[in-house]
Parts: sequence; C-alpha cells; structure tokens
Amino acid sequence: MDIKQYMEQVGKQARVASRAMARADSAQRNRALLLIADAIEREAGALRAANKQDMEAAAANGLAPAMLDRLALSDTAIKTMVEGLRQIVALPDPIGEISNMKFRPTGIQVGQMRVPLGVIGIIYEARPNVTVDAAGLCIKSGNATILRGGSEAIHCNRALAKLVKEGLAGAGLPENGVQVVDTTDRAAVGALITMPQYVDVIVPRGGKGLIARLMEEATVPMIKHLDGICHVYIDAKADMQKALDIAFNAKCHRYGTCNTMETLLVHRAIAPQVLPELAKLYATKDVELRADAEAHAILAAAAYPHLAQATEEDWATEYLAAILAIKVVGGLDEAIDHINTWSSKHTEAIVTEDYTDALRFLREVDSSSVMVNASTRFADGFEYGLGAEIGISNDKLHARGPVGLEGLTSLKYVVFGHGEIRK
Amino acid sequence: MDIKQYMEQVGKQARVASRAMARADSAQRNRALLLIADAIEREAGALRAANKQDMEAAAANGLAPAMLDRLALSDTAIKTMVEGLRQIVALPDPIGEISNMKFRPTGIQVGQMRVPLGVIGIIYEARPNVTVDAAGLCIKSGNATILRGGSEAIHCNRALAKLVKEGLAGAGLPENGVQVVDTTDRAAVGALITMPQYVDVIVPRGGKGLIARLMEEATVPMIKHLDGICHVYIDAKADMQKALDIAFNAKCHRYGTCNTMETLLVHRAIAPQVLPELAKLYATKDVELRADAEAHAILAAAAYPHLAQATEEDWATEYLAAILAIKVVGGLDEAIDHINTWSSKHTEAIVTEDYTDALRFLREVDSSSVMVNASTRFADGFEYGLGAEIGISNDKLHARGPVGLEGLTSLKYVVFGHGEIRK
Repeated sequence: MDIKQYMEQVGKQARVASRAMARADSAQRNRALLLIADAIEREAGALRAANKQDMEAAAANGLAPAMLDRLALSDTAIKTMVEGLRQIVALPDPIGEISNMKFRPTGIQVGQMRVPLGVIGIIYEARPNVTVDAAGLCIKSGNATILRGGSEAIHCNRALAKLVKEGLAGAGLPENGVQVVDTTDRAAVGALITMPQYVDVIVPRGGKGLIARLMEEATVPMIKHLDGICHVYIDAKADMQKALDIAFNAKCHRYGTCNTMETLLVHRAIAPQVLPELAKLYATKDVELRADAEAHAILAAAAYPHLAQATEEDWATEYLAAILAIKVVGGLDEAIDHINTWSSKHTEAIVTEDYTDALRFLREVDSSSVMVNASTRFADGFEYGLGAEIGISNDKLHARGPVGLEGLTSLKYVVFGHGEIRK
Repeated sequence: MDIKQYMEQVGKQARVASRAMARADSAQRNRALLLIADAIEREAGALRAANKQDMEAAAANGLAPAMLDRLALSDTAIKTMVEGLRQIVALPDPIGEISNMKFRPTGIQVGQMRVPLGVIGIIYEARPNVTVDAAGLCIKSGNATILRGGSEAIHCNRALAKLVKEGLAGAGLPENGVQVVDTTDRAAVGALITMPQYVDVIVPRGGKGLIARLMEEATVPMIKHLDGICHVYIDAKADMQKALDIAFNAKCHRYGTCNTMETLLVHRAIAPQVLPELAKLYATKDVELRADAEAHAILAAAAYPHLAQATEEDWATEYLAAILAIKVVGGLDEAIDHINTWSSKHTEAIVTEDYTDALRFLREVDSSSVMVNASTRFADGFEYGLGAEIGISNDKLHARGPVGLEGLTSLKYVVFGHGEIRK
C-alpha cells in the first residue's frame, strides 16, 4: 500500500470514529483519559525502553542535543504526562453546552450548541509528550485525532498509541478515535494536510520552518502562528518601576518563546530616563540592543556595551535570542502605527498610567493579545486560565491567541419547534 | 496599470483604511450609514438612470430574464435598500464588547474583546442591492470592504460607490473604507481571492458555480456554503399533522433556496400512513418524487403521478426544483447515518414527539442548523434574530449557519495588569 492510500484509509477511519467520539458522553470520555493515564503509569518501563531505542537511533544519526533533549522520556516526563491527563479529566466538558436560546416571533426557539469540530490532525516534532497531551485534549473535546509526530520518536509513539487505543476501547470508544500515523515517510504529512474531506483542522506544533512549509501546501484549515514579533511600548506616563520590570521580564524571562518581546518602543519624553536604567538590567544578561538613531544616541552616552544600529529589517525579525530592537517614538499614534505595521499580531503590551492611552492601545492594536502593564510572557493558555493549550493562533478567523479546548469545538444552531412552518 | 497592480493598490488602500474603520466609534459608523441612506434616497433618479444603462447593455448581450430581474433597480428596490441601511443603524454595535474578564492567581485580569476582522472581500452577482447591503454590514462592524459585483451592474455600482464614499467622508471616515472594484475584468476576482496580506476573509454571495470556482483558487479564507442538501426525518412517533405541514413547507415554500428540503426520510413504522397523505399535498404542486424501493411501493399503490426510482445519486443532489428524494429508514440511527453521510451539513429537521429521539437528533446530527418540529426554511439570519445576514456557512471553523454582524468580527484577548511579570 502506498502512503497516499494508507493516509486515505487513516482519514476514512478517523471520519467514521469521529461520529462515535462526538456521541460519547462526558463520563465515557473522562473514563478513557483515566484508563490511558493508568496504562502509561503501569507501562512506564516499556515506554522508557521504546524511547531508549529512539534515542539511540537519533544519537547515531547525529540529532542535535536540543532535539535529543526533547525526545527523551524521563521518569519525570512520564509523571507529567500522566498528571496532565488527570488534569484534563478535571476540566469542564466543553461539549453540548446550549446558549442563547431565545423565542422568535414565529414561535420557534433558537440557540447554539457547542459541538466537536470532527477530525483534528496534529503535526509535531519528535516529542512523545505531545502525543499524549494532544490526544488527551482531542478526546476530552469529543474529536477524533490523527497524530503525526517527528519520525525520530516512532517507537515511543507506537508504544503510546497502543496504550491510548487500549484506553479508548476500555471506555467503549472506537480505537480509531486516536490514530498515530505509523510511518516515518514524509509524504504522510503532505497527504494529511490535503484531505479536507477527512480532516477538519490541522494544528501544527513546532518550529517556524515546519509551519511555513505546511502553509504553502495545506488545503485543510490550520490553527497556527508563524511568528511572534511582540512589542512593549513604554508610554510617556509610564510608571518607571513597572516599565523596567516588564521590559526586562518580557525580553529576558525566556528568549526562545513566541511571546517574548522582540521590539521595545519608548516615548521620546521618557526615553532619556528609562533607557539608561533598562540598559543596566539588559547588561546583566548581555542582551544585544539594536537601536534606532535616537535610542542609539542615548544608549551610547550610557556606554552600553552591546549596541548596534537598527535597520528596517530589525522591525520584522523574531530573534528568539538575547537581542532586542529599540525605537523611540513621538507618541501613542506612532507606537500603534509601528505595531500594526510590523508586528506578527501575536502579543503587545503598553506600560502607562494614562487611562485614555491604555484604552486606546487595547482597542486599536490589532493583535491576538493586547495588554496594559503586564509582561507579554503571560500570553499562554495556562496563564489565561484555559486549563490547557493546544496551540496559539494569530490568525483572525475562528480562534485568536492561546487556544484551549474551546478552540477544538464550534457552535451549531439548534431550533426547538412546535410544528412551525415558514409563511 | 494591469489588473494585478490595480487590485494590489485596492488591497493596500483597504488595509490602510481598515485601521481607521476599526478605530471609529459607533456614532461615526452609524452616521455614515444614515448619510448613505439619505444620499441614495436623494439620488434615486441618477441611480435608476445608471441602472437603465446596465439593463440595456445586458439585454443587448442576451442576459437571461431571471438575471435581468435581479439586475433591475426599481423604486421599490431603492426604498428597500434605504430601509435596510436604517435597520442596520438600529442594530447594537458588535464592536468593543469585553467579556469574561477574570482575575488570575498572578494578579492579571484576562478577558476577550470583540473586534473587526479587518478587510472583507465580497464577491457577488449583478445585483446592485447587494452592494449597499454588504457595504452597510461591513461599515457597521468596523471593517473595510472590497466589493466585486457582477460586471453587468458596473454603471449602477459605480454610482452607488460614489454615494457610499460621500457618506463615509461626511462621517469623517476614509473613503477607501468601501471600495467597489472598478473593472469588469474577471482577473480582478482571481487577484482578490489570493491577497491574504490585504484581505482577511472573502464572502462569496451567488450561485454554486461561482463558489465552486472560488474554492479552487482562493488562498484567503472564505465564509461560504456550496450546497444545501437539507433533510427532514419523520420519526415513528411524529405528530401526523406536524409531519405533513413541515414536510410540505420545507419542500414547497420555495424551491430555489439553500434551506429547502431535498431528501425526506420516513420511519418504516409510519411510512404507510404518512406517505399517501403527503403525496396528496405534493400532487397539488406536481412535485416529482424519487423514492427508494420501499417508498416507491407505497407511493405507487397511492397512484402518485410523478414517481421515479431513486438512485444513490439522488442522495447527493441539490435539486433546487420541484423534485424530492424519499427514503424509508428503520429508525433514528439509520436516519442520522444517512444524514451525516449525504447531507451538505446545512440544515436538518426531525419531526417527533419522542423526547429522547429529539435530543439525540439535536446532538448527533453534524450540520450547521439542527431542528426539532420546525421547517428547514427557518434557517436564515432574519428568522434567527441576527438582524441581518451576510451569508450562510456550512464550514465548521469560525461561523456555522446564518452569519450576521458577529461573523464579521473576532475576539482578541485583553489583559489588565498592574505591573505583573512572569516568574
């Protein structure tokens, strides 16, 4: 059987299974999650053995240490996976909620019911924990799932798939409710993202390279973000301590995350005060500052050691490193213009004590998360209280920002009638 | 300037204008709508003259009478357009609503704000009233709009565009907030649907042919539906009178609409009673019945005059005519299976007095509207109380079913902080 045929079969099986998954009640879906958690706990030894096989092959193939690190399934990682599943059980069931039921003059009563999307395809790197995480969220939200993890994790993913299927069957759910793509052939990804008849949405989890590639080819809609070019704007009326705390935290808490600040905008009136103080903080982390002419002059006068001239390219760059672009602006309008022109519509924050500026920033900045006096690093499903996060979207349709269980559902209209006909 | 360059310029202008449209307050957007309504009323004579030019050219080119009918701008049509704009003014502003603001343990407060999508592209046939209708809904929801109407209406659309721009300017909004594509070259459509950098969503309004063509090529997401293969299922426990009323209304109220029933499913236990009675009603309208073997036997015994054997193709056909497919089923499960296999996920109804069957049908049928004891013809934005309808979606992401002003918006996260940083 060739890959296209194989994926076609996986897709058909998912579509069939999706009906039973959608029909299952809360208790049944939670039961499956608990059975899977128990099985992972019980089979920890076998899972570690399968992971060892993957690790050895990956090391022999010269996989980068950072990637090996993500591939490794330690005792702690197994514990976290199990704990994660039990936390998902504790979340409220997103499915079946009926809202806004209203009588209409014709006599019918109209509202909306929250329902699963159907079949979710997840494409991710060689990280076995994502297999369990993603399967858990999709089971909870009544969806069928097709999981395509990085090929280096194939043995561990196979072992996990077996336990997941056991759990589904034990709860009376179809084993094909979760399918792990059982081939390392890359053509499987190409097939998965071009089967809209079987797959309702793709959630790519992984690096920018992966997502850019998928965007070129996919005909199935995706919940994704490509870049995280996030901004902090320090307003003229900013509280100095809040400005320092937030601008330092947003850049230096972690460099490699999508909600890390990449460009700092500072109001002209406060730049001479705030930039030299900030420079002292960034100097402790050896952050390279790429400054526009005005900011450069101030920072040069403060003898900042890692200073460069910013070019327009810097406004469009996600560094994911100890580098920060800085620009002095004349006021709120210029800040908002810069952001709406250059940001990747992920997360932006203003630091200000001015009520009107705060409200205008919230309203006029067109990004998936907009904040006042808080670090951009808070843009995260757990920090927002979603209970779980399947991904982050900076698209505008369907879901924006951190996507939890609700993002894996949609609303259909329901009508309660009493024999009404249209006149 | 070639078409691609021209559309690129239109797109850029729309993107720039979208920021001012999003920033405008409710009063400003309503003022624009009222100014446009007044201008259309005042310039009715000029509009009719422009329309006459279009009508004469279209007649000379041999446009079909049904199309000529849609192209015509009568006094009544002008009055309806003006009335429609004033009704949109009266609707609540969908923009800026903040919901679900909750404090998190870190101290930040997180919620969501409803915001415009940005730039909406509308592609439609030669119907001048859609120009005003669509512009009105997009202005109300704070979006910039690019309108591409059928080329036969170009003179009238140009005249309308002038009045819309006047109204926008009079309210202090950018004239490019609404742009009518000023060329009849078909390449403009191809350009419009492949500029995701300038256009956030396309709403195609028109026939199946148009939409199928757009689906092939579009890289901008669409709010659309292709087919309306809607079902009514008459359950064993149906009230006979409700069953007759609904099955007759769902088919015969109007044949050409997407929420018209195309397949009737009848429970085996009630088919011998209900089908002969229904046949009497359908006979008054000369409806052709394409029946499966069981239904065929019953209808033949009742000497129904326009009877044919159904083939599998009938389950997949949207007739948009006085034709109905009929199938006898063994029960609810078979009915739901048939629907989830063959329907276009638009609208389905069950007729039953059985509580459990009603709830199961609502839950398990995977369509954008699911009804109990009501005619499928109610699936409509006005009937649902949305106040207006930009289109109907049978996709699963973003908006399902009739799409009103809310479908032209999305939710972004807003965070009220007090200097919080991530630890």
